[in-house]
Amino acid sequence: MKLHWSPKSPFVRKVMIAAHELDLLQRIELVRSVAAMKQPNPAIMADNPLSKIPTLVLPDGDALYDSAVICEYLDALVDGPLFPRAGAARWQALRWQALGDGLLDLLLLWRNEREREAPLAELIGAFELKTRATLQRLEREADALASTPFAIGHLALVCALGYLDYRFDAFGWRGQAPGLAGWFQTMQQRPSVMATAPVDG
Amino acid sequence: MKLHWSPKSPFVRKVMIAAHELDLLQRIELVRSVAAMKQPNPAIMADNPLSKIPTLVLPDGDALYDSAVICEYLDALVDGPLFPRAGAARWQALRWQALGDGLLDLLLLWRNEREREAPLAELIGAFELKTRATLQRLEREADALASTPFAIGHLALVCALGYLDYRFDAFGWRGQAPGLAGWFQTMQQRPSVMATAPVDG
Repeated sequence: MKLHWSPKSPFVRKVMIAAHELDLLQRIELVRSVAAMKQPNPAIMADNPLSKIPTLVLPDGDALYDSAVICEYLDALVDGPLFPRAGAARWQALRWQALGDGLLDLLLLWRNEREREAPLAELIGAFELKTRATLQRLEREADALASTPFAIGHLALVCALGYLDYRFDAFGWRGQAPGLAGWFQTMQQRPSVMATAPVDG
Repeated sequence: MKLHWSPKSPFVRKVMIAAHELDLLQRIELVRSVAAMKQPNPAIMADNPLSKIPTLVLPDGDALYDSAVICEYLDALVDGPLFPRAGAARWQALRWQALGDGLLDLLLLWRNEREREAPLAELIGAFELKTRATLQRLEREADALASTPFAIGHLALVCALGYLDYRFDAFGWRGQAPGLAGWFQTMQQRPSVMATAPVDG
């Protein structure tokens, strides 16, 4: 397995701690990959269009992210103790993870604001590039999405694309991703999706 | 169950779609809660110090977040189909969820930059307030952390607190949270934690 890695990233550190705990270090090849909010990295984006680390590339080429997914995957590989399988212990662990990850998100944004040097246009350009890359990746997966039973991944993607339409209505992504647009259109007929469309007011 | 809710939040929408799919709507009381990055909301923070929605409050008063944790909890309540239990289907679904959530994070930041009116000092003040609140909450849970077997939640919190020390070394949180500081200190003796400390260079 290949891990897009950096020695300073706190989210990469989550994966590295898990690999240590699970005695999986020797099965993971570390690839030094720089991820900065304002500077998308093509080497990472080949595996993860969001240009974020950690990203774990499996032997078959499939990539896993974010840190929570990678950690749970590693834990499952060796039937480890990091993700309690069920019940109160699981929800407690996942809630703590959400608290830790949420705090990290906050701190990273904070630091970014504090030390920002890049002009706003550069940041906006990076946002657009990563959004286009994500849509391109999803376009390649449109058939797989359509043929896989509705689950949490579908749900999350419907919310993200719905928000893109809601708040970025001039973005015009359907021409770039017609297959994804078709899949998204079929999702609109799902009662749960119809019932939860964003509304003003 | 009580859900801190807003009709426009795309992450709240994830939970609402899940509740629809799982036929759990009638068991969830919606509480309109406004969460803005620059304006921490005390009503939410009583349940989630990060001041983020969705936050689900269980009948016993425990709160669950973020959207991924709430959705998995609801799915487990009724043995639903949203989170495939194991194998390739699970990793595919979780990877897609990470992609959708990651895209949403990106879009929310983008919109925030685009439409920002608040002065930077206000944003920084909000970051600090939420960080202090999170530490305060964790201080109350320090004993529970110490008496629970090391799992993914511990791991995430070690990374977040480690990053706080690494990038905000003048923050001085240990006086405010001595119990948490003690727990964090014991975590430093864990080989996986020692081996992954952030380093410059």
